[in-house]
Amino acid sequence: MSFLFPHSTDFYDLFERSAAKAVEGAQLLEALVKAFNDVSLKAKRIKDVEHEGDLITHETIEKLNKTFVTPLDREDIHRLISSLDDILDFIEATSERLSLYNVKDIRPDAAILVDILVQSTREVQQAVGMLRHLKSGDSVLKYCTEINRLENESDFASRSAIAKLFEPNANPLEVIKWKEIYDCIENAVDRCEDAANVIEGIVLKNS
Amino acid sequence: MSFLFPHSTDFYDLFERSAAKAVEGAQLLEALVKAFNDVSLKAKRIKDVEHEGDLITHETIEKLNKTFVTPLDREDIHRLISSLDDILDFIEATSERLSLYNVKDIRPDAAILVDILVQSTREVQQAVGMLRHLKSGDSVLKYCTEINRLENESDFASRSAIAKLFEPNANPLEVIKWKEIYDCIENAVDRCEDAANVIEGIVLKNS
Amino acid sequence: MSFLFPHSTDFYDLFERSAAKAVEGAQLLEALVKAFNDVSLKAKRIKDVEHEGDLITHETIEKLNKTFVTPLDREDIHRLISSLDDILDFIEATSERLSLYNVKDIRPDAAILVDILVQSTREVQQAVGMLRHLKSGDSVLKYCTEINRLENESDFASRSAIAKLFEPNANPLEVIKWKEIYDCIENAVDRCEDAANVIEGIVLKNS
Repeated sequence: MSFLFPHSTDFYDLFERSAAKAVEGAQLLEALVKAFNDVSLKAKRIKDVEHEGDLITHETIEKLNKTFVTPLDREDIHRLISSLDDILDFIEATSERLSLYNVKDIRPDAAILVDILVQSTREVQQAVGMLRHLKSGDSVLKYCTEINRLENESDFASRSAIAKLFEPNANPLEVIKWKEIYDCIENAVDRCEDAANVIEGIVLKNS
Repeated sequence: MSFLFPHSTDFYDLFERSAAKAVEGAQLLEALVKAFNDVSLKAKRIKDVEHEGDLITHETIEKLNKTFVTPLDREDIHRLISSLDDILDFIEATSERLSLYNVKDIRPDAAILVDILVQSTREVQQAVGMLRHLKSGDSVLKYCTEINRLENESDFASRSAIAKLFEPNANPLEVIKWKEIYDCIENAVDRCEDAANVIEGIVLKNS
Repeated sequence: MSFLFPHSTDFYDLFERSAAKAVEGAQLLEALVKAFNDVSLKAKRIKDVEHEGDLITHETIEKLNKTFVTPLDREDIHRLISSLDDILDFIEATSERLSLYNVKDIRPDAAILVDILVQSTREVQQAVGMLRHLKSGDSVLKYCTEINRLENESDFASRSAIAKLFEPNANPLEVIKWKEIYDCIENAVDRCEDAANVIEGIVLKNS
């Protein structure tokens, strides 16, 4: 299938650039939670990356609206770029809340969750990178399966992290803050799974 | 219209199995809130049902991606199976939180809300069951109207349940927990309405 | 392009009526937060407007399901009417919470946010009003750019409003209430941006 879409590689470029931005954002978030200082400065950098991702998304949508024959179903292009964009949005929402809520001490569970997120974005990047030369869907599907596994792991980890927040003498303000931060990270991982589901569908249609 | 889609009854099977899982999940949740003991065990059973529902959803999406001519619009098949899947996801989210948050006493409003949810899933099951033999849309639309009515009832009940949480000396941790539990149930009922809206659209297109 | 869709102006009527309802709802919410009395009565009036908006949405979906050749892509019609409907849903969710949570004193930040929302709905109404006579997309795109700017402004304002809630001795119950109220207003502005994105796509496709 590698010669099926000879003149339309641009959409793949855009997907790859978008997935690379998601990885970059996740890694910056990892650096932030591992060395929890200069929070607003580091959050600002993630905000910039998210904005760079937005530009890629807008370029993709504009191209989609101006292209008559697309290499993949229009709906799939829209869904894939939207879920890639959403990953970065939730990464930025996480760092923004860490800064905005004036969080003093990072909780160890945050690092565990962000670590799963970094892995998920890398798997998404690998899967997206194979869409262009879709000789065999098998290895793409392996990445998708791994992303699903990571989402289950993240789901379990975030639920137990949230349960820990509700100890009897917990400060309710801290519970509200951290619950939202954990939810943001979990949502970012969920969006990796959304991207994987779109990719899986593309592979199945073309196999 | 009963002979319109002679060779494609499988999608209907999948919808019916998915709707039946939603009813099963809602009934298990009803059993849980009515006899509030062995919470983690009962929540685990609902988790299993949700997983069984996931498999039906994946089978449907896979079939959709491999089927060239579908008995209903592709987008409608995707939307219907997604909303059926979402119903069960929110049912499971509810039981999971009852277990995770270590809830000791069930609030009576929970039973009221879950009762509406059980009714809604049953109406959805009835409406889905008629899609296959769509001789006349009238009776399907009656179910959809009833689902809309139940959603309004649920909306009103969950809002008043939430308002009750905010009494002046309320424990904020309990408010956070219960607000989320009520929201989960209400979301499950909302997804029943989403399913009804898709079904309504299918009937209108084919009338 | 003004003669391109001669026989199908009804969808444009419906969009215009829906956008007008969003403006009406936003203005009623503005009146509520500026003169914060008779809250439940004023919230009831917004509820009525939201219901009137629902009827327009249902009429549009029904028409879409019964129309074979549509003046715009079916998916765009569905997305546009859905985002217009969502604007009003979040406006109503805001007023409903102000009433339901028995809020005694309005916070000044609420008026700032609602002011941005009113501006956004007016820009949406202008953009929607030009869809019918789409001679040049330029001025439509100007409105879309302004809606995006307002969304950024609203994003910044709601984040700083939420940050202010978390002062060390804050009443957690008030934090929960107000955080949700601010989120509802912000969501309404986000839906204005969704509508702008759909409109932008329509203009690009037809230019």
